[in-house]
Amino acid sequence: MRQYVLPSSYKGESLLTLEKKDSQYFIKVLRLKKGDKIIARDEEGKIYQLSLVDYDKTSCTLSSTPISSINEGESTDSLPSYTGQYPNIHLFQCTCKGKKNEGIVRMATEMGVASIALIQSNHCISKKDKKDNTRLEAIIKEAKQQSGSPIPTTFEGVINIGELPKIWKDKLIFFHQTGLDDQKDLKTLLLDFPIEKPIGILIGPEGGLSDDECQMLIREGFDPVLLKTNILRAETAAICAISAVHTLLMEK
Amino acid sequence: MRQYVLPSSYKGESLLTLEKKDSQYFIKVLRLKKGDKIIARDEEGKIYQLSLVDYDKTSCTLSSTPISSINEGESTDSLPSYTGQYPNIHLFQCTCKGKKNEGIVRMATEMGVASIALIQSNHCISKKDKKDNTRLEAIIKEAKQQSGSPIPTTFEGVINIGELPKIWKDKLIFFHQTGLDDQKDLKTLLLDFPIEKPIGILIGPEGGLSDDECQMLIREGFDPVLLKTNILRAETAAICAISAVHTLLMEK
Repeated sequence: MRQYVLPSSYKGESLLTLEKKDSQYFIKVLRLKKGDKIIARDEEGKIYQLSLVDYDKTSCTLSSTPISSINEGESTDSLPSYTGQYPNIHLFQCTCKGKKNEGIVRMATEMGVASIALIQSNHCISKKDKKDNTRLEAIIKEAKQQSGSPIPTTFEGVINIGELPKIWKDKLIFFHQTGLDDQKDLKTLLLDFPIEKPIGILIGPEGGLSDDECQMLIREGFDPVLLKTNILRAETAAICAISAVHTLLMEK
Repeated sequence: MRQYVLPSSYKGESLLTLEKKDSQYFIKVLRLKKGDKIIARDEEGKIYQLSLVDYDKTSCTLSSTPISSINEGESTDSLPSYTGQYPNIHLFQCTCKGKKNEGIVRMATEMGVASIALIQSNHCISKKDKKDNTRLEAIIKEAKQQSGSPIPTTFEGVINIGELPKIWKDKLIFFHQTGLDDQKDLKTLLLDFPIEKPIGILIGPEGGLSDDECQMLIREGFDPVLLKTNILRAETAAICAISAVHTLLMEK
């Protein structure tokens, strides 16, 4: 089922008044009537049962009760959701042009990745600025609502590829299209990997990772994986890699 | 490496003159100079070595020699490609709004699916018309060229969901988000499935497949699979499912 992602200012109050875009979401998108119910999550993933108390053209008021699981709550929206376990995937995506970043962030959030960071690497065409990040955070919120994701996906900002070994101490696999030494296949790499453990996925930019970057990543203990398919555009590569890792971790 | 997809009118001539968009592809996109080489495929997947003989603003002439494998040919484009085996995936995609169909067809072609058909089902919002098909065929051609796909992906037109059992006699799995009787997990379904055998994937429309449709598909021997993730938009669902099946068939 769909869910509402509560604003970061919400601290568990039992009545909640929303305006503008947020109010429109209930009245225009979900078309709730007085008394209709929907599930909401705060930014940490805590679940609430909301019920529409009143609304006018520009704002609406909802009652809010914390609940311990989605099964305990009610929702006027009837789309069913998967409620089992998710892998703990963290996406490191080399920056692409603006619209592509947005598409990737949207799809990765839908797929339930735990966090997304944009990476600056040698062959990245475009730089990111702060304004874009606000836009990306709004897209993550939208995608969480639409997909009913139980994962509180976070946006970790823009990171230089050289900094990656300092901030990421867990397993990280990077996909690319040429054979490198010591390359394992994805299934072997994930064979005994516990589903709840964090795993990073690094996706190169459109021009690929440079040889120096690949060597640095291998030296730092990260794992190269050959993407056994055609030359993919960045957005296809990202979702394809997330789905591959998700599938191998889930279907054991 | 990238490749040129030859027009359907090409029948193996040793000199080839191209105009307009096709000529622009060599001169403006690939920026070939006289004598530069590129790999091409005809619509059946046969491979040719092309070399630029001459060009002006509106047209170009290339020499063409049939070759038996890509390794035998040369290409000025240096992007490496995966040259191993591909699974034999056929996508049956319930129709979405125009732009979404285009995005799905582009990504599925990049991923190397063998064929794509659009399916009309009860909850499909939009109907397809003939004009759209020409556009989709152009997108498939573009995606083959960009991705260097060795698979001659075909577009099979628009089919009513009720016709599916008549035209598809191989295995077909359909993804959806509620538990159905007799449901297996994807890994079990694909465990002993040979990589070269045709496998169909049916992706429902945004509102999902109806209960009647699910029952009909099961009665006809098709296999329901629970998509173990959030509510996905159609484009994310398609690429995610293709990647899941591709991964399980390749990583055995």
